[in-house]
Amino acid sequence: MEKVFFPASVVVFGVSASPANLARNIVLNLQRFGFKGAVYAVGKDGGEVNGVRIHPTVDDVPAVPELAVFLLPARYIPGAVEACGRKGIRRVIIESGGFGEFADEGRDLEDEVLNIARRWGMRVVGPNCISIVNLENGLALPFVPLDDREVRKGHISIVAQSGGVAIDCMRLLSYENLGASKLISMGNKLDVNENDFIEFLNADPDTRVIGCYLENVADGARLMRLAGRTDKPLVVLKANTNPVSHRAAQFHTAALAGDDEVVTAAFRQAGIHRVQNLSEMMECFKVFSLPVIKGPRLAVLGRSGGQAVLLADAVHRYGFELAALSDDFFGHVRQHLRAGVIRMSNPLDMGDIFNIDSYAGIVEKALSEDGVDGVVFSHAYVASLEVAPSKRLLGASLELARRYGKPVIPCIIPDRHAWFSVKEDAKAFLFEDVDLAMKALSRSLRHHRFHSERKARVPGEPARTRRKAALPGGFMGPLEAFSLLGAYGVPAAASAAVASVGEAVKAARRLRYPVALKTADPGVLHKTEKGGVALGIRSEAELRKACRAMKAGRFLVQKMAPAGTEVIIGARRDNEFGHVLLFGLGGIFVEVLKDTALRVAPLSAKEAVAMALDIKAAALLKGFRGGGALDVKALSRCIAGVSRLLADHPEIGNIDINPLILYGKGQGCIAVDAKIEVS
Amino acid sequence: MEKVFFPASVVVFGVSASPANLARNIVLNLQRFGFKGAVYAVGKDGGEVNGVRIHPTVDDVPAVPELAVFLLPARYIPGAVEACGRKGIRRVIIESGGFGEFADEGRDLEDEVLNIARRWGMRVVGPNCISIVNLENGLALPFVPLDDREVRKGHISIVAQSGGVAIDCMRLLSYENLGASKLISMGNKLDVNENDFIEFLNADPDTRVIGCYLENVADGARLMRLAGRTDKPLVVLKANTNPVSHRAAQFHTAALAGDDEVVTAAFRQAGIHRVQNLSEMMECFKVFSLPVIKGPRLAVLGRSGGQAVLLADAVHRYGFELAALSDDFFGHVRQHLRAGVIRMSNPLDMGDIFNIDSYAGIVEKALSEDGVDGVVFSHAYVASLEVAPSKRLLGASLELARRYGKPVIPCIIPDRHAWFSVKEDAKAFLFEDVDLAMKALSRSLRHHRFHSERKARVPGEPARTRRKAALPGGFMGPLEAFSLLGAYGVPAAASAAVASVGEAVKAARRLRYPVALKTADPGVLHKTEKGGVALGIRSEAELRKACRAMKAGRFLVQKMAPAGTEVIIGARRDNEFGHVLLFGLGGIFVEVLKDTALRVAPLSAKEAVAMALDIKAAALLKGFRGGGALDVKALSRCIAGVSRLLADHPEIGNIDINPLILYGKGQGCIAVDAKIEVS
Repeated sequence: MEKVFFPASVVVFGVSASPANLARNIVLNLQRFGFKGAVYAVGKDGGEVNGVRIHPTVDDVPAVPELAVFLLPARYIPGAVEACGRKGIRRVIIESGGFGEFADEGRDLEDEVLNIARRWGMRVVGPNCISIVNLENGLALPFVPLDDREVRKGHISIVAQSGGVAIDCMRLLSYENLGASKLISMGNKLDVNENDFIEFLNADPDTRVIGCYLENVADGARLMRLAGRTDKPLVVLKANTNPVSHRAAQFHTAALAGDDEVVTAAFRQAGIHRVQNLSEMMECFKVFSLPVIKGPRLAVLGRSGGQAVLLADAVHRYGFELAALSDDFFGHVRQHLRAGVIRMSNPLDMGDIFNIDSYAGIVEKALSEDGVDGVVFSHAYVASLEVAPSKRLLGASLELARRYGKPVIPCIIPDRHAWFSVKEDAKAFLFEDVDLAMKALSRSLRHHRFHSERKARVPGEPARTRRKAALPGGFMGPLEAFSLLGAYGVPAAASAAVASVGEAVKAARRLRYPVALKTADPGVLHKTEKGGVALGIRSEAELRKACRAMKAGRFLVQKMAPAGTEVIIGARRDNEFGHVLLFGLGGIFVEVLKDTALRVAPLSAKEAVAMALDIKAAALLKGFRGGGALDVKALSRCIAGVSRLLADHPEIGNIDINPLILYGKGQGCIAVDAKIEVS
Repeated sequence: MEKVFFPASVVVFGVSASPANLARNIVLNLQRFGFKGAVYAVGKDGGEVNGVRIHPTVDDVPAVPELAVFLLPARYIPGAVEACGRKGIRRVIIESGGFGEFADEGRDLEDEVLNIARRWGMRVVGPNCISIVNLENGLALPFVPLDDREVRKGHISIVAQSGGVAIDCMRLLSYENLGASKLISMGNKLDVNENDFIEFLNADPDTRVIGCYLENVADGARLMRLAGRTDKPLVVLKANTNPVSHRAAQFHTAALAGDDEVVTAAFRQAGIHRVQNLSEMMECFKVFSLPVIKGPRLAVLGRSGGQAVLLADAVHRYGFELAALSDDFFGHVRQHLRAGVIRMSNPLDMGDIFNIDSYAGIVEKALSEDGVDGVVFSHAYVASLEVAPSKRLLGASLELARRYGKPVIPCIIPDRHAWFSVKEDAKAFLFEDVDLAMKALSRSLRHHRFHSERKARVPGEPARTRRKAALPGGFMGPLEAFSLLGAYGVPAAASAAVASVGEAVKAARRLRYPVALKTADPGVLHKTEKGGVALGIRSEAELRKACRAMKAGRFLVQKMAPAGTEVIIGARRDNEFGHVLLFGLGGIFVEVLKDTALRVAPLSAKEAVAMALDIKAAALLKGFRGGGALDVKALSRCIAGVSRLLADHPEIGNIDINPLILYGKGQGCIAVDAKIEVS
């Protein structure tokens, strides 16, 4: 991957001397961005582009370039890749569209390209992308003309699935005065995907923050591992959230744990910062370009009473606190007062301090306080007089933030022309809205806490994955499901499968009354609604009557479980993240209020406890209003057991343990219904 | 009020010829903004400001100005107001600070000013404000120097409690290319408050959208009436959301219905658009500067695949739909294709249409479709070539939106310099982020629906307010509370108050077992937690035992109500909005999940039904999982009854009917505990 970003030489395919030729822009971009390596061009008509000779074939190129970039009609790509392979080129970027995104034939072409690449041991970026801009060495490969003055060099790298969004990000970074390191558009992710790029960027010393636009997730488990392995903030806009089709409601869990809910849960679990739009992504980039905030205590400075109110609202809204400031600090402030009348409080009203050049000193004094984790200031100024000192202030606050290792958040409401001028000259990023700024800053605090906990965590015992013989496909019978779950520590009500009323009577005698009777046809999914369940049967007569009423060929006779709190534990295999676990309280809590906890498997027993207590109605588990605490330990053992089961049997597609009946502390729990589907 | 905004003449107090004088800026602003009326200045040192003579006293002014503006130290204000009164001036604006916002003496000064003003029949704006800018006539009264080139004339008016935020809004409007009509900073709202200004702006033909920044609400009921009386969108940023003190938890309702929750509920009820920050306010202004959207069906046009995905996500996220576009429309699009390969779908990828001047025709064609309620397009362009046609497109789309009476939302990701240039020249507002734009557009749809319903509503019978003799202050005894509630249609369990075990036994005999026993001391607030409640007593022996265990002097013996679903109906008097009603399901639903419905009283029976069904767990009321529907009719009769009770007895401070036990459809409900506090 190193050579994709730092090749000594590049060859561009599809170039012609015509001004309408798009591949030509690649050569020109490389020149404009000052790429120092050798640049070769290949195009059937020959000629030259701004001093670069166009060779008719790659064989004519007088060296073996380290990287090839294609912008040829899709049908010519396999031949060109083959030619590169022969030539000894091992890295290719395909910018052309017309592949899998376009039509089925395109997908065949992709297979062909991938086969050729594998044969020659080549890595392929794309197709259907605008590829890479590396601002470290001027490797600017997009086929759209780029203006090097519109991109500042810095430490934010972007991995985007869409070329359009990659360009959007580049523009927004420039607009916000944020500096970029690497910009990547991945296209169809035929070979190299976001994880490969993130792995590279994790190790890239020039990259400090990673932004990512994804329409699908190539390998969620790997993405989570990569995110968890680094302190570099990973900010992801996961699009394509609109559920195109409704999942068959055969499993509660499958219906409740929608694709997008899984993305949210998985990202949270891995410390990935999910954003909903590009504006929010830019706010995150600004915050993450500052030192991470290590606590909630903020010194808040403002020049207008209204902005101080808005700041105080935002401070509390996002979980921050107003720091207690020392007399020493206020003493420093007093030196700069004009009228001398100012309330010495936090938020501090600086409306009476007219010399803007004294602000940096106040910011520094606040930063130096032990009880201050960060400084926010809302700066307003009179355009005509105060633009120059305001620009100095912005520069100084950025520098102070770095020196003290604490963030300084300058919020400025723009006067149009002064704003443009500040953007042009100050070379610093600003925040326009205190509420949005505090929201972004709360990510910084969450980031700090997540990684502090991660580092403090004692690595648990490695998950014992005892990959077993695969289970047969389809729905598992209820007894088989109970028995399999039992092997992983999930207790089930004693049950017997019977095929006649006589057998049912015998089974009930053995299990002892009261019993429950259920149809044993795995096709009947919502037994209760379909008259497939009779509970609390206390005698043989009642049992016979229930059997007759049920009109089923096969029954499950089950020892009646004592009343308790019904909960659901479920799992499904997600296309992007693999096995996902779900927990919730039964009935209205999951079905109407959607109060569920979701986690990507595997989970330790400790993590399972945290998961159980993650539902909004967790008070019911802990003992609500003298209801007594429930057996959360037993519950979490079941959740962790299901997690182990899934690790051993990746072929399991869906599990619903619904209900699991949960009893008081120390009294355990018992599954009375369980469905497992292998697929 | 008309003369505050359109005075024929203005006198400014506190002016001196010194460049450091702030009142001088008022005179200069009036000149700079081209105010055509007469401008007089008053200041003890005399002299002149840019051709305006400074009179030593108002008596020297050779006319009776229609409006006086003060920027004098607070202590001189009463005398100046008195002098104005004598002179015959009936409208004054006090810009000076140093009043109630500052210290207690300031509050005394305010009283003094108000008394003088009342005596002379004067209206007062301020104090502690930067007052008014009216762009219709150039009345620019702030004491900060303003640049008339930085404010565009238009139809948005702003009412702000803070001068700083008023200026912020002015800057943001200018920055966003939005035009303003009136900008108002109200300060301490001594006399004139937001409602007076909103009433004026409602009637002002030049104002089409009203934005408001409030730190407190002067009279919530009047605000709600004003909002409900007009189609003009009222967008409010209500700040000061941070709860400074925790309300005593004597009443559940009081604890659950926090000030900020009440604001949210009241605004929703009145069709007021609450925003959380100024950025969101500006997005609303843009959307409300376009025709309101009358349905959810959108035609979505984009130039990049990624932006189309983001747009489709946002369309669904905010309750819109992708419109079905006709063959006729697609036929029109086909004319403009370059390569001819494009998927005819919605979102429509316009990446293959290179002539931007053909976009306006496509937008118009989409607008002309019956099945399209609005058009959104995500526009990206190459700065160097396409800036000019893009500017034309923005102008055209605004014009088309007006012609077709449907909104057109242009979303553009800025290239820094092209962006500045578009902002400067296009004179049109733009949206930067499709997600935020769709969020704002969803307000437009809500606005349309709210006002359509409002107009369709048959006016109900006027609330029968039979203002009764005031109830005595303090906590009401349980029997009195039951009896009062009973008179308003809230049935209660038959109960007797007794002072001895013997009386309790007699009462129980009369009520018939089973009974409940409760302490009758109104001071014991959470009876259950304190052993003050014994339920399901079936015999005299049990009753005697319960009485002895309870260790109380007075008891309530109550006919035991059959088991049912516990709900809570409550009310409290809010400082800003008056009486507020609360409904929720008992136990964990209100206490942990905070699943409540809040409404400002009064409510009709029909509105009470809607309120009851507004909780998230409404499924439980409608019959969840064969649980059977509950008696929502009886429930809503109780809610409406409490509403009438509050109208008759404004002196009631708090009510908790908790629990009200609700039974199945047609089987009513019964209150078993009720607390009323008169205050």
